[in-house]
Amino acid sequence: MKQSILFVAAATLLLATGCCNKQDNTATSAADVVMQNILNRKSVRSYTGDTIPAAVMENLLRAAQAAPSAVDRRPWSLVVLTDKSQYATVFEGNFNMQKYMESGAVVVLCADTTFTAPTRDNPDGPAVVQINSMWRDDLGAATENLLLAAEAYGLGACWTACYPYHDRMDPVKNALGLPPTVVPYAVVSIGYPSAENQPKDKWDPARVHYERW
Amino acid sequence: MKQSILFVAAATLLLATGCCNKQDNTATSAADVVMQNILNRKSVRSYTGDTIPAAVMENLLRAAQAAPSAVDRRPWSLVVLTDKSQYATVFEGNFNMQKYMESGAVVVLCADTTFTAPTRDNPDGPAVVQINSMWRDDLGAATENLLLAAEAYGLGACWTACYPYHDRMDPVKNALGLPPTVVPYAVVSIGYPSAENQPKDKWDPARVHYERW
Repeated sequence: MKQSILFVAAATLLLATGCCNKQDNTATSAADVVMQNILNRKSVRSYTGDTIPAAVMENLLRAAQAAPSAVDRRPWSLVVLTDKSQYATVFEGNFNMQKYMESGAVVVLCADTTFTAPTRDNPDGPAVVQINSMWRDDLGAATENLLLAAEAYGLGACWTACYPYHDRMDPVKNALGLPPTVVPYAVVSIGYPSAENQPKDKWDPARVHYERW
Repeated sequence: MKQSILFVAAATLLLATGCCNKQDNTATSAADVVMQNILNRKSVRSYTGDTIPAAVMENLLRAAQAAPSAVDRRPWSLVVLTDKSQYATVFEGNFNMQKYMESGAVVVLCADTTFTAPTRDNPDGPAVVQINSMWRDDLGAATENLLLAAEAYGLGACWTACYPYHDRMDPVKNALGLPPTVVPYAVVSIGYPSAENQPKDKWDPARVHYERW
């Protein structure tokens, strides 16, 4: 009995010192963790070739789909390649192609650039196909989310532009069998890094203006 | 003496249960924190009007500048407004303008769409002005980083598109005195939320394809 009282006292003391004080620590340290992850993200182009666990990959895809999206259109679709023999088809002509062959997975972020919806001028009218260019901004945010999630899981990744270059898009469209309205936006190689990679420190206070330029 | 032995034993037991086992927990929980932050980000349009501490704002700007950038061009510049009387100038005509007046700060993410560099064909030649469109993807990623950092610090934010709409860009260019080659890409209102905001669950497994469409 005396022992258990002492145990409880010791445990209480440990908790009070903040070691496990989740209530107090969450706000500060969660922000620190998020900031550190954003600042640590870097382009990684050399991988061990190891497979990425399915649960981790699903979280990467969830992160991509959690991006903000203009008028909530969510124009993204994701094609995941894990068959290394197919990687060459989406990196055709890429300078770093040989390195990317050791990716654990390759994610091709695509966008349907058309959508069917009533117009603002005629909200009750028949659905029509509208085209605007905001899908590109949505896809940029989705790609960044994917890269940040990869960094968080100790993976390395590299964003390779596909859109708007026809010499990059056409082979990808053919290889993946994309529908005519779907554009391959970016090809992201992902894998466990085979070497140390340092992030760049890009902070430049001169790029910040206050109140006006 | 007996008490301190018991204390050590209790502390050891607590550590062994993993409560404070930082070595084992860091990897998992950092990923969890980053994922949760990505999934919790949402558009917040109502704010308390409170000021954002300078140190927090600097971290938001650092996050934006840590975005990936095509051929490392870093085309971004950021204009930070904290003078509420000026907010109206950058939200001219915006449906939610009145709400945004209570922002703690407004960040206008801009891009210089031109850059001066030797060409690939003539690397030792004189610097020339090149123009490509990849700045838009860089700015999309930078904007998402800013939003994620805001979420991490308990702030709410909303991304309002500016580019490519001339009726939105022109008043911003005039109000901020942007140089002719600088384009206002997005206007982000940031502030302490005045109400609860729930993130959308956008996860749609049907938007994921494996190996090909």
